[in-house]
Amino acid sequence: MNGKPSSNTAGMPIRCRAAIVRKPGEPLVIEEVIVAPPKSREVRIKIICTSLCHSDVTFWKLEHPPAIFPRILGHEAVGVVESVGEDVHEVVEGDTVIPIFLPDCGECTDCLSNKSNLCSKLPFSVSPYMDRDKTSRFTDMNGETLYHFLFVSSFSEYTVVDIGHVTKIDPQTPPNRACLLSCGVSTGVGAAWKAANVEAGTTVAIFGLGAIGLAVAEGARLCGAKRIIGVDVNQDKFDLGKKFGVTDFINSRDCKDKTVSQVIMEMTGEGADYCFECVGMSSLVQEAYASCRKGWGKTVVLGVDQPGAKLTLSSFEVLHSGKSLTGSLFGGLKPKSDIPILVKRYMDKVTRIWVFRFLSLTSEVKLLLS
Amino acid sequence: MNGKPSSNTAGMPIRCRAAIVRKPGEPLVIEEVIVAPPKSREVRIKIICTSLCHSDVTFWKLEHPPAIFPRILGHEAVGVVESVGEDVHEVVEGDTVIPIFLPDCGECTDCLSNKSNLCSKLPFSVSPYMDRDKTSRFTDMNGETLYHFLFVSSFSEYTVVDIGHVTKIDPQTPPNRACLLSCGVSTGVGAAWKAANVEAGTTVAIFGLGAIGLAVAEGARLCGAKRIIGVDVNQDKFDLGKKFGVTDFINSRDCKDKTVSQVIMEMTGEGADYCFECVGMSSLVQEAYASCRKGWGKTVVLGVDQPGAKLTLSSFEVLHSGKSLTGSLFGGLKPKSDIPILVKRYMDKVTRIWVFRFLSLTSEVKLLLS
Repeated sequence: MNGKPSSNTAGMPIRCRAAIVRKPGEPLVIEEVIVAPPKSREVRIKIICTSLCHSDVTFWKLEHPPAIFPRILGHEAVGVVESVGEDVHEVVEGDTVIPIFLPDCGECTDCLSNKSNLCSKLPFSVSPYMDRDKTSRFTDMNGETLYHFLFVSSFSEYTVVDIGHVTKIDPQTPPNRACLLSCGVSTGVGAAWKAANVEAGTTVAIFGLGAIGLAVAEGARLCGAKRIIGVDVNQDKFDLGKKFGVTDFINSRDCKDKTVSQVIMEMTGEGADYCFECVGMSSLVQEAYASCRKGWGKTVVLGVDQPGAKLTLSSFEVLHSGKSLTGSLFGGLKPKSDIPILVKRYMDKVTRIWVFRFLSLTSEVKLLLS
Repeated sequence: MNGKPSSNTAGMPIRCRAAIVRKPGEPLVIEEVIVAPPKSREVRIKIICTSLCHSDVTFWKLEHPPAIFPRILGHEAVGVVESVGEDVHEVVEGDTVIPIFLPDCGECTDCLSNKSNLCSKLPFSVSPYMDRDKTSRFTDMNGETLYHFLFVSSFSEYTVVDIGHVTKIDPQTPPNRACLLSCGVSTGVGAAWKAANVEAGTTVAIFGLGAIGLAVAEGARLCGAKRIIGVDVNQDKFDLGKKFGVTDFINSRDCKDKTVSQVIMEMTGEGADYCFECVGMSSLVQEAYASCRKGWGKTVVLGVDQPGAKLTLSSFEVLHSGKSLTGSLFGGLKPKSDIPILVKRYMDKVTRIWVFRFLSLTSEVKLLLS
């Protein structure tokens, strides 16, 4: 890392290194870049640690809009405030913060409601610019604009983030754990905790035991779920899943002539109280919905399907089953109020998922950055 | 009406008149029938008043299974207990009761839970028999079996109903209002009250202002909804809807190049907090879902689509919108605990919908029975 958090740099452009995607799917290139000072309601952050979410990989490979290049990816990170723009009163230089792709302005109807986590003042999008003035704070050494990603762009030593996307956390939090709260872990834990509101003693089924699915298991375990059924094509995920609370495992390739939902019905008698789709396949959402218990079963969609993908359900089942279907961005969490709670839980050693996710993804980050 | 509620008939077959469908779509025939005495956990009821639900018409016309003939239709009714079978302690001869298609055994996990109204001991179906022993209590004068409909078969002067389908009500309730609580009115009012749990001050959109849609409006009004948007192809429904709380009307044939959801977005700015589909068309469910507010919008499906119909949504919208989709049988009401509340509300003159529905359907009943 070049540069240090210091008021010496406040108001000045910072020259530092960043990993840039110049063309889709090509290795990221470490280059020197210029990071402009933060404007009104913006914060410039020195990134301490960043991890990799699959959405970074998706947008790294994507050849068509909303893909745009050259771009600085990365949106799971933790850092320290280097300087703040005008009218920023929430954080000061030196604060430890997590930049989060989902905005939380704290002022709009949604942010003030406990029913929504989708800020309506700074709506979530995959815009390549800053939220408010729709311009970039990054240029390369030739003066060319470098585009932002998910309002974070953490694959840079310094980045500029709107205050609506910044959550202050306990500075004692280990950085290599804290960064994981920027997206995936929070999405999974939050989906069980907030989006589904898993009740103690219930049965949960999780389709896909990747990092998100394992985080759902962790969230369901923390909520007191009695039985957590993991579904995956990789048998090795069962042993891994056990560490996060998975009690039963279905290898969907070993179901023979039965569907996964039939197997879950046989295992549970009535179906799962909550089903989470963590892969991004419409057919799996259907299986998740079919695996839910009549009367109150809830299916939560977390997986990102292909653009334009359609989700099909039986009209009869929707009408007659009393089940519900919902989706969740960031697990239904409100970044500024819920993330500090998760940090505290980690610091109190209630949860343990961060370690895994960091270790499992570090190799991918290295690959991309090499 | 022949026969009188009297212990003289207890334990004996009763000969009375019923309206029978012998072939699909053919006029109902008034015939004498034999109604067997109630078996264990069954009640024989003298029907005082019956109304007509569209599901009666659907099964009257239906040519293929689950249609079956000869059958006694009718499932919106009120009556008086003539006699009870063994092990019936909940009602006695002379009690005023409403037979309801949806069971409420009061003992199973679902009936004991406040999250479900789908009894798991006596699961809802379109079986042509009694719930427990899968036989009929009706025969014609030639000894031929006559089939039940929705566990009620109220187009008969006497019928036998499982105690799980019987709700005792205040005997002062006017019969021509009380019978309407057996299905349609309860489904609509309940959908707003229980299935959606409409909050005061919110905006509701109702797709289809038939009897169910108007009952939803009434339910939403009772819940304190601020704005109730009715959508229909019939302009006359607006004046009618106003009587039930509809504040705004969209004639879906007059939207020109816009979709109904676009019009609702323009009218409301953000969308409706709750949308109810009361027609039974997948395309309308999509419009209802699209009309819902991001963050917390809830779509409730009440309309019965064609058998095998599919409901298609955008995976992206499901994931990113924070909206939810659910369906509801009987509006999410628990017959034995919630219907007495609705009766009390009517008796206290809080609601007024029954009058309309009765008047509007009487002509159809007469037509069918002529």
